[in-house]
Amino acid sequence: MKYLLMAAAAASLVFPVQAQEPTPIPSPGEIAAAAPAADWIAIAPSDLLVMDLTPDAAGKPRRVVIQLLPTPFSQGWIGNIRKLAAAHWWDGTSVNRVQDNYVAQWGDATEKKPLPDGLATVPEGDYVLPVSQPKMCAGRALAVCQPAANGLTSSDIRFSGAQSRDAYAGAVGFYRGWPVAADIQIQSIRPDAQAAGSTAWPIHCYGAVGVGRNMSPDTGSGAELYAVIGQAPRHLDRNIAVVGRVLVGIEHLASLPRGTGALGFYEEPGERVPIKSIRLATELPVSERPTFEYLSTDSASFARYAGARANRRDPFFIRPAGGADICNIPVPVRAVAAK
Amino acid sequence: MKYLLMAAAAASLVFPVQAQEPTPIPSPGEIAAAAPAADWIAIAPSDLLVMDLTPDAAGKPRRVVIQLLPTPFSQGWIGNIRKLAAAHWWDGTSVNRVQDNYVAQWGDATEKKPLPDGLATVPEGDYVLPVSQPKMCAGRALAVCQPAANGLTSSDIRFSGAQSRDAYAGAVGFYRGWPVAADIQIQSIRPDAQAAGSTAWPIHCYGAVGVGRNMSPDTGSGAELYAVIGQAPRHLDRNIAVVGRVLVGIEHLASLPRGTGALGFYEEPGERVPIKSIRLATELPVSERPTFEYLSTDSASFARYAGARANRRDPFFIRPAGGADICNIPVPVRAVAAK
Repeated sequence: MKYLLMAAAAASLVFPVQAQEPTPIPSPGEIAAAAPAADWIAIAPSDLLVMDLTPDAAGKPRRVVIQLLPTPFSQGWIGNIRKLAAAHWWDGTSVNRVQDNYVAQWGDATEKKPLPDGLATVPEGDYVLPVSQPKMCAGRALAVCQPAANGLTSSDIRFSGAQSRDAYAGAVGFYRGWPVAADIQIQSIRPDAQAAGSTAWPIHCYGAVGVGRNMSPDTGSGAELYAVIGQAPRHLDRNIAVVGRVLVGIEHLASLPRGTGALGFYEEPGERVPIKSIRLATELPVSERPTFEYLSTDSASFARYAGARANRRDPFFIRPAGGADICNIPVPVRAVAAK
Repeated sequence: MKYLLMAAAAASLVFPVQAQEPTPIPSPGEIAAAAPAADWIAIAPSDLLVMDLTPDAAGKPRRVVIQLLPTPFSQGWIGNIRKLAAAHWWDGTSVNRVQDNYVAQWGDATEKKPLPDGLATVPEGDYVLPVSQPKMCAGRALAVCQPAANGLTSSDIRFSGAQSRDAYAGAVGFYRGWPVAADIQIQSIRPDAQAAGSTAWPIHCYGAVGVGRNMSPDTGSGAELYAVIGQAPRHLDRNIAVVGRVLVGIEHLASLPRGTGALGFYEEPGERVPIKSIRLATELPVSERPTFEYLSTDSASFARYAGARANRRDPFFIRPAGGADICNIPVPVRAVAAK
């Protein structure tokens, strides 16, 4: 296959685990595929949203599976989203906006559908979480060192250091399989450092799912959601709630026709893409539940994988970069057979 | 319009210049729209490639306009591309690969179409350019200070400084309207600094057009091209030639169905998207030439625009970021009436 642009396999969140010719130096995808079973962590079906769009013009099904963020991030909105899914609220709504290099957004185009009772109004302060450093637990074992309510300690996050020099935050890294940022300076990430008043927050990478909102102080209910389909819009971090990410099926959103109205809204009702249903995976019969694992971001395998993303030495490359944007280190996720 | 995710206007390379309600603090798009005429620079039709795909299923035309990089970057490949366009070589070829969050790639799917005579074989060294610093011209006026052959001086580049802290390069900035990177450390960017052996290179942002290649030492002829349709694949910088960027019509590539073969190649010939023609704009009748201007990246207007991209204070935002990825500062480009 001549004139081939290679080097692409690990660019999507879910990579195919397939037979490949052995190479002198493994690619990031090969490193992840070779990780021992113990490094892979099952994703709970209660954290998965299954969105079925109506089939495409050729009759092919279009399923998008979204993983919700783990505690303690964004839990107010995620509680609302669980209620909306349980109420089957999105059934019959639609994708109403697709803006190139930005987002695909879905919800109730009429803006008149009543919301379920009991949705929380989440404060803006919940865009970030307090993050303390282990120093604050000096003298006690880390295991008994409790973080602030709804907070976490910096040792919960695997910071990327200089390899991921970031324009938007003092430090970026991974928390239980998710890219996050913190207003901690890289040089102060050590056990004995103070970081009074520091915060951490989930970030907008490709495939991230967030909560549409009106002008501040509105923070959105979670009924109006979007997925990022372009360059990471990190300027939205801390300005709008990230609640999850698309694990599979982002192409069903990213390849939709772009809306021609302002901000990419579809101008004609007939252009909207109907949503058949959105369900928590726990509501599906066990045999039909999608099941996934992610590569533990605390594992040595992940550290090797991330290092290889920052310094590609597999055969296509002639010059490793020496670093990688946090959004160019997608956490490996794989579909597994239901157990 | 309730539950609206706003803040998007400047996310595409070409933004609509439209009436907007006055806001207390202008958005980046408003700053660019208000720039004086003198800050806008015409793009020569000889630097534009016009690609017409066959119309879509609804019969709508699909035109993609590409701007080629200015001298001295990537000129070997760009010379080849001019010859290929003049030979109408791409007419009847196709888009053969669309990989989600990565690239759309086009060329001759048969890999058998003879290339025009006289194409250059470009060395790998041309992925970067030598960049010297004004210090090397000490004692002479800058105007008579000649850079190395095919090189440039660091004063030709408007570096972004700490606002664009970058994982892939010591410094990033803009050169005559284009995002570029250099292996100069931010702290050394001052007139009296030395930077012996420094290089600069064009970078892979959303919409960037590059040259597909085979394994090294192949560098590609320019006959096989791709456009970036996802998160900036900056690991390709210095590993593959960037030759231009899509000014308008990227959505015609980014919304194509993703290929289901390895690396996103279409598996069935019928899935490929035929290319009607690719022409240099100079070959079109004057009345049919697309005409564009870009906002001078040396202008005060651009500095204000870039600053506002890094610190959004228009009404939707509650917390400015304090920085922006170089690929999130798209250079404003506008279509203008042909003169």
